[in-house]
Amino acid sequence: MRSHHCGLVDEALDGQTVTLCGWADTRRDHGGVIFIDLRDHEGIVQIVIEPDNAAAFAAAEAVRYEFCLRVTGRVRPRPASQVNERLRTGRIEILADTVEVLNAAAPLPFMLDDAVSEDMRLRYRYLDIRRPEVQRRLRLRTKLVSALRHYLDARSFQDIETPILTKATPEGARDYLVPSRVHPGEFFALPQSPQLFKQLLMMAGMDRYYQIARCFRDEDLRADRQPEFTQLDMEFAFVEERDVQDFVEPMIRHVFQEVVGVALAAPFPRMTYAEAMRRYGSDKPDLRIALELVDVAEHVRHVDFKVFSGPASDAGGRVAALRLPKGAELTRKQIDDLGPHVAKYGAKGLAWIRVDDLANGREGLTSPIVKFLDDRAIDGIFAAVGAQTGDVIFFGAGPYATVSAFMGALRLKLGHDLGLVEDAWKPLWVVDFPMFEFDAEANRYVALHHPFTAPKIDDVADLRANAAFAVSRGYDMVLNGNEIGGGSIRIHRPDMQSAVFDLLGIGAEEAQAKFGFLLDALKYGAPPHGGIAFGIDRIAALMAGTDSIRDVIAFPKTASAQCLLTSAPSPIAEAQLQELHIRVVKPTT
Amino acid sequence: MRSHHCGLVDEALDGQTVTLCGWADTRRDHGGVIFIDLRDHEGIVQIVIEPDNAAAFAAAEAVRYEFCLRVTGRVRPRPASQVNERLRTGRIEILADTVEVLNAAAPLPFMLDDAVSEDMRLRYRYLDIRRPEVQRRLRLRTKLVSALRHYLDARSFQDIETPILTKATPEGARDYLVPSRVHPGEFFALPQSPQLFKQLLMMAGMDRYYQIARCFRDEDLRADRQPEFTQLDMEFAFVEERDVQDFVEPMIRHVFQEVVGVALAAPFPRMTYAEAMRRYGSDKPDLRIALELVDVAEHVRHVDFKVFSGPASDAGGRVAALRLPKGAELTRKQIDDLGPHVAKYGAKGLAWIRVDDLANGREGLTSPIVKFLDDRAIDGIFAAVGAQTGDVIFFGAGPYATVSAFMGALRLKLGHDLGLVEDAWKPLWVVDFPMFEFDAEANRYVALHHPFTAPKIDDVADLRANAAFAVSRGYDMVLNGNEIGGGSIRIHRPDMQSAVFDLLGIGAEEAQAKFGFLLDALKYGAPPHGGIAFGIDRIAALMAGTDSIRDVIAFPKTASAQCLLTSAPSPIAEAQLQELHIRVVKPTT
Repeated sequence: MRSHHCGLVDEALDGQTVTLCGWADTRRDHGGVIFIDLRDHEGIVQIVIEPDNAAAFAAAEAVRYEFCLRVTGRVRPRPASQVNERLRTGRIEILADTVEVLNAAAPLPFMLDDAVSEDMRLRYRYLDIRRPEVQRRLRLRTKLVSALRHYLDARSFQDIETPILTKATPEGARDYLVPSRVHPGEFFALPQSPQLFKQLLMMAGMDRYYQIARCFRDEDLRADRQPEFTQLDMEFAFVEERDVQDFVEPMIRHVFQEVVGVALAAPFPRMTYAEAMRRYGSDKPDLRIALELVDVAEHVRHVDFKVFSGPASDAGGRVAALRLPKGAELTRKQIDDLGPHVAKYGAKGLAWIRVDDLANGREGLTSPIVKFLDDRAIDGIFAAVGAQTGDVIFFGAGPYATVSAFMGALRLKLGHDLGLVEDAWKPLWVVDFPMFEFDAEANRYVALHHPFTAPKIDDVADLRANAAFAVSRGYDMVLNGNEIGGGSIRIHRPDMQSAVFDLLGIGAEEAQAKFGFLLDALKYGAPPHGGIAFGIDRIAALMAGTDSIRDVIAFPKTASAQCLLTSAPSPIAEAQLQELHIRVVKPTT
Repeated sequence: MRSHHCGLVDEALDGQTVTLCGWADTRRDHGGVIFIDLRDHEGIVQIVIEPDNAAAFAAAEAVRYEFCLRVTGRVRPRPASQVNERLRTGRIEILADTVEVLNAAAPLPFMLDDAVSEDMRLRYRYLDIRRPEVQRRLRLRTKLVSALRHYLDARSFQDIETPILTKATPEGARDYLVPSRVHPGEFFALPQSPQLFKQLLMMAGMDRYYQIARCFRDEDLRADRQPEFTQLDMEFAFVEERDVQDFVEPMIRHVFQEVVGVALAAPFPRMTYAEAMRRYGSDKPDLRIALELVDVAEHVRHVDFKVFSGPASDAGGRVAALRLPKGAELTRKQIDDLGPHVAKYGAKGLAWIRVDDLANGREGLTSPIVKFLDDRAIDGIFAAVGAQTGDVIFFGAGPYATVSAFMGALRLKLGHDLGLVEDAWKPLWVVDFPMFEFDAEANRYVALHHPFTAPKIDDVADLRANAAFAVSRGYDMVLNGNEIGGGSIRIHRPDMQSAVFDLLGIGAEEAQAKFGFLLDALKYGAPPHGGIAFGIDRIAALMAGTDSIRDVIAFPKTASAQCLLTSAPSPIAEAQLQELHIRVVKPTT
């Protein structure tokens, strides 16, 4: 139906006749001549329809915004005054021979260059995607996925599909369920990840596996979550941690280079979980922000101020300082406004010292807490953080995890609010995660990665004796404060898997019911294996320079898990539910 | 953990030390020396453990079937008497330095080279996949998908993911449903195909789309169906039928060449639906079987035998003959046994004439029906089918569709039972399908492809007036009797889409409720577009030379839609169902 794409017609085609298809981006009448900007996925080209071509002129007169057209005409140079150097097509125009309306368009609910609400954009997603910027983001995602596939296909990885209709395998989030028609009262679950299937594939001798896999979690959505999301899922047989990391790190470097021309550091820095929490209060530190937490417990252990000395003397406590250079430029109100922010992360308060003049001793300090600190404490803190005139030093004190969380959040907020985020790409590996976290409420351990992650300790009795301090063989790839990939070496011995289930409070009977097939499979010579999964939506969003993964998903859902385009979910006829042996029980309100 | 793969060690490595990982395929003790065949995904290599290496020998003595091992040793030539020319590794062996048991294996439920039931194979799929033949089939599928992707990625196709949690879009089969937790009483449906999303992507200006897409149909399963299956889904903007066909035909030729070294015909033959039904009694004719149906109504219209003359005189009737050369070799019982087979396809009986001696007139014929036919009829029939001595000629008479169906089935059965299936690849295009079939029971039309397929008639009033005879813009790609791909040019005008919904008995209100978003989208300058979808499971099965698509799916389900490996579906805790606002209502039996 067409000989060329609109956005690609240039001087090289001067004098030739071309046939183009696309949408009327604009129509202008000027001096008795009609100009139409015809747009396709490659760009825009100017069509000129002169009145002496009566048929084409009549057709063009009927054209409105977003009419779908087919135009045949001759390429000719534009008058010098009309040349647009910013467009590939900016030196030429098409003198129309024929203009055919392939489809009319009713007045659109919004103009494509309007700023409209996200709800409108999602409801009319087929119009929203016509915007060049949205096209660009979706095409970037395609390029990312394609680059990853080509990389892996060239390296003997087997792209293997795993089931979507599968068994509930609790991994911390709620499952989406699918009632079975054939087996009354029974349900499939949609996979939260292909974790167990990929491990089974290694036990099956497939050696190296990948899949661009759809995953499902029925969680309360945050801005950056979707009920269904996509990960690059990988697994390797006969590997240790560094084998996996040394394979995927160059792969990620390759795709950043190929897709967005970004050269990531080689090699990525490596950091233990403990160091990341200590310096950044986060297991996914954003290294673009130069601010760091400093532990000052040793300097305040002796003071009377219990808010500090208590946690400083407690093995499970933390007193951390964050030095903000030029923080003295903040107003008192700006400082006070940080309190409610850190409170969201569990802070009971946020102490601070403003260093108005370092040379002037206590007189040179402004602070609600300095009166509680003796000189030894102040000198010790200042030396530890490297205090200078003009700084504000913030303090967090309390349980280690809480202090790390809110001081880490403070660090991010200050970095973003004050423009301290370096324009750079800062990847790193975070390693040596704890195997377990103790859930005080449930009075049991929970897995920091997932229950199939191997501990560094190889002996079951040793693990039981040292569970609280056990380090796992898990690793995360972090980029600019986002965990873009996470993986581990898996447990491949049935005794170790049973022990870990047991430590997680999953009794032998429950383990058999939920994971019997895994425990069985481990019995028959399961190989050592490990892998990783990368968040495709997040990586694409980072590459596209957008905060929202909805921008890189063709048909995303809202924060209440609805598709505004198709109106899903929706009510279903009673007869259909009967066939599935279920009945709706609406909550009484 | 390893330096090489087992199956790839050969003379080129003679004298070198290698480290290999794999499974103990066999262990033999011979003359005080232990031999282990170590297997990985690349093949098998022979390990020799000599008694003077005490540590390795002790480790090797403990090795049992399917133990997972790591072996380091030196490559050396085998004694001439032990050379195995059929293996890449057959001229060498590895003299072990160290033998490490990575994981022990309990006695397996079956030996890998045992013939076991499919239920056992599926339950222990992780062992089943260790068989080299199963590995080969799954790897062939990976290669097929990879070849398709590379072909399309190089041709500007955008690989775009469409939702799995979506709206029920009835396409003839039952939907799998997913209750919404956030919206009580509402449900998502799993897609039967991405049909409407890919059309919307064309309306959104994405121009060329593909996806290796998971699709879901809750149907009663036949041998070659799965609840979830995979298709290569494609859509093109600004195209007509031949544009789509001329693009995908070379693509299919390319992947057959690349994956299995098969050169398919170029170009594929083309046949109308009418011709396919007339000559083969099927819209997916298996051209490997040379037998053809011949219409003989004109020769039997005048006879008294109402079984023939009735349908022969009826515009909706058919009298078809199928000549089986050398059919006289069939016993009477063999011929009689064909009756129950064709009865399954609606035949009331199967008439036949055996030509014992063509030169001998009626005396030379054996037949239950020849007495009802006059010479004119017999001569006419014999001329039409080209009868020869030794033939059996079968006859079907009745409604056109029924006769075509059972005579087509007869043709396939004779072809397969009598070894008349040529060892060849016979692709073709079937085109010019009827737009509608009349469903007498429901007293309305049903769509032969789907409700979004465009008719060849462009005018809504013309279509309404000629619905019974309207031809669609649909097309199927057929290979060896399998529909491997099906597609069409779609309706892109809202008035035509509404008219087709109306003819299909979908009223304006229902159309708005179910497809309102499509009808809306068509209003805003939707481009002409069309596409096709290929059955990946079926194509992979054909390439792998297996009848069952379960052989090319890593984790398939049984005919009752169960996963024997994970025991899905399974019962779910009441609390979880409450959160989803549903209750199980088991059928009373």
